[in-house]
Amino acid sequence: MTDTITLSRPVADFHVHVRDGDMMKLVVPTIKSGGVSLAYIMPNLVPPLTCVSDVLAYKSRLEAIDPTITYLMTLYLSPAITPQVIHDAAKAGITGVKCYPAGVTTNSEHGVASYAPYYPTFAAMEQHDMVLNLHGECPSGNHVHVLNAEQEFLPTLKDIHTRFPKLRIVLEHCTSAAAIQAVKDCGPTVAATITAHHLFLTIDNWAGNAFNYCKPVAKFPTDRQALLEAATSASAKFFFGSDSAPHPIANKEKGNGAAAGVFTQTHVAAYVAEAFDQVGKLDRLNGFLCEFGRQFYNVPQEKPTNWTVVLKKQQNVVPALLGQGPCAVAPFKAGETLNWKVEIVDMAT
Amino acid sequence: MTDTITLSRPVADFHVHVRDGDMMKLVVPTIKSGGVSLAYIMPNLVPPLTCVSDVLAYKSRLEAIDPTITYLMTLYLSPAITPQVIHDAAKAGITGVKCYPAGVTTNSEHGVASYAPYYPTFAAMEQHDMVLNLHGECPSGNHVHVLNAEQEFLPTLKDIHTRFPKLRIVLEHCTSAAAIQAVKDCGPTVAATITAHHLFLTIDNWAGNAFNYCKPVAKFPTDRQALLEAATSASAKFFFGSDSAPHPIANKEKGNGAAAGVFTQTHVAAYVAEAFDQVGKLDRLNGFLCEFGRQFYNVPQEKPTNWTVVLKKQQNVVPALLGQGPCAVAPFKAGETLNWKVEIVDMAT
Repeated sequence: MTDTITLSRPVADFHVHVRDGDMMKLVVPTIKSGGVSLAYIMPNLVPPLTCVSDVLAYKSRLEAIDPTITYLMTLYLSPAITPQVIHDAAKAGITGVKCYPAGVTTNSEHGVASYAPYYPTFAAMEQHDMVLNLHGECPSGNHVHVLNAEQEFLPTLKDIHTRFPKLRIVLEHCTSAAAIQAVKDCGPTVAATITAHHLFLTIDNWAGNAFNYCKPVAKFPTDRQALLEAATSASAKFFFGSDSAPHPIANKEKGNGAAAGVFTQTHVAAYVAEAFDQVGKLDRLNGFLCEFGRQFYNVPQEKPTNWTVVLKKQQNVVPALLGQGPCAVAPFKAGETLNWKVEIVDMAT
Repeated sequence: MTDTITLSRPVADFHVHVRDGDMMKLVVPTIKSGGVSLAYIMPNLVPPLTCVSDVLAYKSRLEAIDPTITYLMTLYLSPAITPQVIHDAAKAGITGVKCYPAGVTTNSEHGVASYAPYYPTFAAMEQHDMVLNLHGECPSGNHVHVLNAEQEFLPTLKDIHTRFPKLRIVLEHCTSAAAIQAVKDCGPTVAATITAHHLFLTIDNWAGNAFNYCKPVAKFPTDRQALLEAATSASAKFFFGSDSAPHPIANKEKGNGAAAGVFTQTHVAAYVAEAFDQVGKLDRLNGFLCEFGRQFYNVPQEKPTNWTVVLKKQQNVVPALLGQGPCAVAPFKAGETLNWKVEIVDMAT
């Protein structure tokens, strides 16, 4: 029985929200405690990061909190992101551009047409080998709702891929069997991230439970099964991106308009180990957490780490809260007992 | 343009939760203000009402608060509800027995088998012409989840109907196109209630919004459409039952385990008028709210009322809260503007 797993190198988390200000100070230190040394940082601050200098300034603020983490940075797709900005961003070492459906302002019901204004931007990204990160959902309305919003987006994914076959695209936090199949059907430039929490959750888990509510929402048991199978398939098209999304507890404990997002950063590697263990696939853990994402992104300059991650099969209780007061954040599975624990082991120097 | 509707008589609400104690005192007076003179009272108190004397005592407590309302009373189906209890209940004027899936303790996964122990009870109810009120959901587990839980229950409905064809059965608060079809497919002893809130809500409305979270959950846009069509079809098989379910706001504004239930009592007739108006079917309102339910139940002794209900097309804002402090209850569409208003008009004596 495997009860100790030493990862080949620390986890690469290809979808991370660490916010700004006090929340950033609370959350950034938990990147390492979750077993992660490489964090792909989302640009959806308030206001969003739509110019190179803002992204670089944000990176400096992150470095000031924990300089040992490798931060890969992104821009927020908006009309400001011209081909010239892409050129400058590539030169400045920015890795990707994140596209949210909220940024879609025309013909947003069907999604596809709305992306046309960005074709010159996508062409520039393809030329500079930058990555396009898609939040793959169509906005709700008419026949589109939170449960089919991802599936409705898949023709858009395929269309962009067909138009820009060399553009590397990541379908972020995919949640449905249909999305898994679509990513498989695309060529090798298209991959997908899978979160920790979507390996556990289905619709019943967020019905009446705002802590488990996120976008895209967790779907049916068959979808969860498809995610587990993809994550443990040893296909390099599927790799880890936690989409860990901290929200002050007050923004979760609202009757109306609870914030969408599940916070997993503190225990990411343990959650994933737990899920893989439940289906007897711990041998597939290292590829999913540490290798496939780095391969897809072809990460050029990663900071050397003087620590390794050891996962131990050992019961430990997820704390009720990270932080204190109204800005405290409830971690995923707060108060529950995990069977796996992340240990950070400093290497002899 | 119709902008004033005088109902033939006050609304009959065939699914009402008014709780007990302080909450009962807060909510019972709102039965009339919502336009209702006949309330079919649910037995799921804590502990549930499983004997005739408890039901009668509860009725007395309701009468003490507002003696002008006709309260039709129910028992909570449990092993205590023997054929003898049914005999006594019928004699005491109790109208029905409510069956919750939570009461199903064996083979609950598929529901059907679990009802067999109650066949003698159902036979006695059929003999005494009591009504069986079914919360039509299978418990979640394996392939059953909150979105198909009602559909999975429908074979059970049909099975009970086939075994007890003269037993009057109401499929409560039905939420799906499949349930509407199943009720149509059954004989005239099977009917269904439809709530006010399910005429408005779909899954997107309760995703991240605990105030709109109830069981059965609101489903897809096509399901809402089927409910609207059934409610406005002038079929006497479909009539109003609000399932108005007050919860202290603190039990709604929880990150984990928000109470299920939508509180509509204060404005029930206005909500329904609004929904019917949106589809141009105000001419069908009176049958749905006032006639079909009374016909199905064949209500024997209703208290005379010296007031009528007039619905006026007039903008009015739903208050943020009913009551004060931690036990205050948020009404459905709190803070939103309705286009219809309930007016209670005292008749000249």
